[in-house]
Amino acid sequence: MNVGILMNVFANNDHYLNDLKITVDKLRASDNFLIIAHAFPDGDTIGSSFALCMSLIKIGKHARVICSDSIPTKYEYIYSSLIQSDFEAKFIIATDIADTNLFGEKLQEYVGCVNLCIDHHISNKKYAEFTLLDAKAAATCEIIADVIKLLGVEFDNVIADSIYTGLATDTGCFRYSNTTPKTLRCAADMIEFGAKSAIINKRMFETNSRARLEIERSAMNSLEFFCHEKAVLICITLDMLAKAGATELDLEGIPSLPVRIEGVIVGITIKEKSTGHYKISVRTNNGVNASKICASLGGGGHAAAAGCQFDGTLEQVKNIMIEIVNKELG
Amino acid sequence: MNVGILMNVFANNDHYLNDLKITVDKLRASDNFLIIAHAFPDGDTIGSSFALCMSLIKIGKHARVICSDSIPTKYEYIYSSLIQSDFEAKFIIATDIADTNLFGEKLQEYVGCVNLCIDHHISNKKYAEFTLLDAKAAATCEIIADVIKLLGVEFDNVIADSIYTGLATDTGCFRYSNTTPKTLRCAADMIEFGAKSAIINKRMFETNSRARLEIERSAMNSLEFFCHEKAVLICITLDMLAKAGATELDLEGIPSLPVRIEGVIVGITIKEKSTGHYKISVRTNNGVNASKICASLGGGGHAAAAGCQFDGTLEQVKNIMIEIVNKELG
Repeated sequence: MNVGILMNVFANNDHYLNDLKITVDKLRASDNFLIIAHAFPDGDTIGSSFALCMSLIKIGKHARVICSDSIPTKYEYIYSSLIQSDFEAKFIIATDIADTNLFGEKLQEYVGCVNLCIDHHISNKKYAEFTLLDAKAAATCEIIADVIKLLGVEFDNVIADSIYTGLATDTGCFRYSNTTPKTLRCAADMIEFGAKSAIINKRMFETNSRARLEIERSAMNSLEFFCHEKAVLICITLDMLAKAGATELDLEGIPSLPVRIEGVIVGITIKEKSTGHYKISVRTNNGVNASKICASLGGGGHAAAAGCQFDGTLEQVKNIMIEIVNKELG
Repeated sequence: MNVGILMNVFANNDHYLNDLKITVDKLRASDNFLIIAHAFPDGDTIGSSFALCMSLIKIGKHARVICSDSIPTKYEYIYSSLIQSDFEAKFIIATDIADTNLFGEKLQEYVGCVNLCIDHHISNKKYAEFTLLDAKAAATCEIIADVIKLLGVEFDNVIADSIYTGLATDTGCFRYSNTTPKTLRCAADMIEFGAKSAIINKRMFETNSRARLEIERSAMNSLEFFCHEKAVLICITLDMLAKAGATELDLEGIPSLPVRIEGVIVGITIKEKSTGHYKISVRTNNGVNASKICASLGGGGHAAAAGCQFDGTLEQVKNIMIEIVNKELG
């Protein structure tokens, strides 16, 4: 193991390092690992689970990954090379799962018997026997990379692809504020270990489905400025979704589009969930309190991203949101 | 200077390291530096020029940056803190400029008297007395960071902001294939030196002007699929530009949007430059030769990105491009 890698591990605080050692001791002492990825799996839970699984297999252990939902085919470069072995599970690991309600319908039997949870969510409910948590990590994959290093497993290109995927997807390709020097250095290591970063980035960030294109186009066509162009509103109705052939999965990231317009400080996205029932996402810039705006309709969230619900007509929900925002921005 | 930084510098090949030493010797031995940023300045030439200028001033030299065009206000966090000193220029430096035709109209007097060029373009014309070139560098800022390190200048947050800006803008925020482990580690160093990476990323990658929004929206509304949905065509007419209040500057990156659609392997963007005169940009995936497609109309370029021109009506240019692409894709 080279000095650079060890320095990377030890750059963290003592508490984390201690928990990392406990984690690795547990992994060394156990076998027959069942690794749980969360429901509606994303790049971080998939990358974390498979990178850990492959590493455990590399040191002669039995391990497999399970998930309540099927894993999207765009991640097949991670899981396709893995031979799933059949064995009786003895040690249950959850990756990137803050709360057991994210296990999904099919994996409820494992709630209450998780031996180890590896996660980066500060909101982690500590439901596992032991939790390795680093809330400063941009992705759980960043923590998994430390575990693999300390386990003494040599990174190969598939493990590197897995880790890189989690780092890139959880940071919007290193764009979001959660990206730290450690995240970037971990990504650099993974590229040196053979991660096909450019191909992964293209697949994750530069490929849109036709349905996504259509729904984004019609959402942007619904755009209305108000409050002296400081606020913007877009709508996504059931009819628009049907015409675009789109589902909920195609809407990822759309609520953050309106506030990207120069000068806009409040962006409202109104989604029709079922006839007459609307979910509203509010995103803000410049310190405007999104949570306060949503509280007017009984919702809540964070300072820059919040949500609420409304029953009525599209006209009514638009009018009430415009009224609330006008009042808030004075 | 910490060991990690030195290792970063010396990880390069001998030839580069030698040129780096010559560069630093020249900077130490000279004074009254005039640093040229290229016309239509981007994040990399601006970041490079100002980072070098600030570093030279820090070691007691006189230095200032000039550019044929005005520097967009979105970069003001880089240049606003710099006190421009007045002195007779004695040593001319060009950053990120492959060819003197990029000096711009107002700086033609400096063509032929450049003492030092620092650049990462493999196409560099070697017009300077001495050229420090690293074609593997993702951005000229990556090379400038090495120069500053070897000069022994301590990075401050403004220099770090400048370098980070060049790295991020030339790599699409570390998304493009030019991003190397060295690029990512250099960005990590800059964040540690105080670069406000999250704010810079938001400004560079998540802020669109109203005009850009409007022209992108109408371009996407012009989208037509053809050749069994394997090819896509969008148009930007003078009328659309006028309605959107947009200029050429608002069109950056638009030609790469059509090929992001899943399954699309040829994306055509037709721009009306003046009445009856069209510029066509072709982008391809999966090894389709964009240059060959454009050669049919006397144009050319690279394998995945090429261009050509056409005089006639919009209908004619659309038809001829569809015909050429249909023939190419068989």
